[in-house]
Amino acid sequence: MSAPAYSRPAPESNQGVLLARRLLPPVLREWVERLGGELATVCGYQLGLCDDRGKPTGGVGGKLLRPAFTLLCGAATGARPADVVPAGAAIELLHNASLIHDDIMDGDRERRHRPTVWARFGEATAILAGDALIALGFEVLAAQRHAATARSVEVLAKTLRLLARGQELDLRFESEARVSVDECLTMMTGKTGVLLGCACRLGAAHSGAPAEWAVRFERFGVHLGVAFQLADDLLGIWGDPAVTGKPVGADLLARKKSAPVAAALSAGTTGSARIAALYARPGQLTGAEVDQLTELIEEAGGRDWTIAEADRQVSAAWDLIDGLDLDGPARSSLATLTGTLLNRDH
Amino acid sequence: MSAPAYSRPAPESNQGVLLARRLLPPVLREWVERLGGELATVCGYQLGLCDDRGKPTGGVGGKLLRPAFTLLCGAATGARPADVVPAGAAIELLHNASLIHDDIMDGDRERRHRPTVWARFGEATAILAGDALIALGFEVLAAQRHAATARSVEVLAKTLRLLARGQELDLRFESEARVSVDECLTMMTGKTGVLLGCACRLGAAHSGAPAEWAVRFERFGVHLGVAFQLADDLLGIWGDPAVTGKPVGADLLARKKSAPVAAALSAGTTGSARIAALYARPGQLTGAEVDQLTELIEEAGGRDWTIAEADRQVSAAWDLIDGLDLDGPARSSLATLTGTLLNRDH
Repeated sequence: MSAPAYSRPAPESNQGVLLARRLLPPVLREWVERLGGELATVCGYQLGLCDDRGKPTGGVGGKLLRPAFTLLCGAATGARPADVVPAGAAIELLHNASLIHDDIMDGDRERRHRPTVWARFGEATAILAGDALIALGFEVLAAQRHAATARSVEVLAKTLRLLARGQELDLRFESEARVSVDECLTMMTGKTGVLLGCACRLGAAHSGAPAEWAVRFERFGVHLGVAFQLADDLLGIWGDPAVTGKPVGADLLARKKSAPVAAALSAGTTGSARIAALYARPGQLTGAEVDQLTELIEEAGGRDWTIAEADRQVSAAWDLIDGLDLDGPARSSLATLTGTLLNRDH
Repeated sequence: MSAPAYSRPAPESNQGVLLARRLLPPVLREWVERLGGELATVCGYQLGLCDDRGKPTGGVGGKLLRPAFTLLCGAATGARPADVVPAGAAIELLHNASLIHDDIMDGDRERRHRPTVWARFGEATAILAGDALIALGFEVLAAQRHAATARSVEVLAKTLRLLARGQELDLRFESEARVSVDECLTMMTGKTGVLLGCACRLGAAHSGAPAEWAVRFERFGVHLGVAFQLADDLLGIWGDPAVTGKPVGADLLARKKSAPVAAALSAGTTGSARIAALYARPGQLTGAEVDQLTELIEEAGGRDWTIAEADRQVSAAWDLIDGLDLDGPARSSLATLTGTLLNRDH
């Protein structure tokens, strides 16, 4: 087995992330409190604003990466932070709504080292809490009454529709023996791409930049979202357990049809057939089999394809905004954050 | 036991209902098709646009009462149907989203004489389908780009937030021995009132009427929604099984804390204590016990209170819009529809 080559550091010192962590929590807290009752506690718990009894944590749970992109895309196109904070909050609220609902569907009991909402509060409350966070997302965005608001709401709604479609594909792939790389990329676009695309677009849309720029930033974000997911898929097989907090070859143990696996299965080699046979075999895979799968996937070109595809996505992203006259420091923070998330800095 | 006094005829011949059934299905069909894949089938099934394999039914499943109110409130305040059809569609989509999610939470397996979405397609797909219908609701409303769009989206989002709160109360009441009439009215406002309030408000908001009128129509709709729920609660105890399609005293068999029960329990009489004891007794209630409960609730004033409260709500509703200069025929259709739903016409 190869040495782990991918690990993902927390991008704590990035300008966008720092800004998001300073500006977002008060807004998220204010909106979640509007829910009242148990839903305020449950949604606050999901966002990491409070513990499971409603006691404030003083911070948030997630990395706020998506709002960081909103803020940086806003700054890059001339927005003041206040112009784009509601959009960043809307993205974070929708993201957490989809996490709550996905965790129910996937039966995942733990997230960020705590029980998931359904595992802690029951399924009925979790369904409601997801709905409530969706409601807050649209409410915070619509309440701003920016000139771009109606268009932005439409984009947010389209994003929620495509997220549902992405999750539908993901659930379907679980029961299919083979997933093509194109299907895999379509699913990634739905599950990860469109939300980051929306995050970037709303940043640019609320800055007063030309409407055409907003569309470019959306496509920029979609490509980056897919690239980040591809990097995650590499981590799921070749990630360092000390960094990922997951066992070696976690995605293989779970028999996920992630991008490297889909690419290796599509190669049509004898190795592809052996991977398919191991995935089809009933029962838990042994450590030796995970090692074997890892090698087979590398030999069938699954790792190289995934690395090359991530590169293609990142190039396509930057090509879209390279010709635009953007704010220098913001553009540079955007590049740093992207690089950090793709582990280009080590 | 008293003879059944309440039955609810289908308001088929009402102008608003006729208009909604002519104008809404093509719009609903167009938006549901955007979902693609299985979600288009599942959401189409919920709306009654197709069967469980996607074969078109040529119509819709629900009565489209809420969009009928949107269209009539629009017409009453001078809107053309085209101005308010997207708002009516948004209301119907959100209503069906909440039905799908509520059916999962309540474990209800049948609706409109067909299996519910979760019972037919599984819980995961049902959660996703609800999310997808919420997305479509916001998308159809935002896509209109009316001058009032941003404000209307905010109202729709607030409505979704309050619906979640209403359902949370409803779930909580199930495990509480006693529910006060105030709590009961708060829950009804959340579960039924706010959505009809939103339906009426968006009709008036997209007609170019003064903003203050829209707020009045929202409150009008909230009061009517509560009144309709109170009438439903009367049907749940005294309804004619031949009309309701449910057994005699259906809500008592299910030990629901509906408004007449809450009022009777709050009366503080010896009858109240006997109702509480019967509700607390483990095991299925017998037919004789249901008859006894029905009498006890009447004697404790539960029925009279509910009828009087429905009257108060209806009066409060009409008081809000009585002074406005409305279109005569539309206002008259609104009155007829309201009367029909409250069974005033026989």
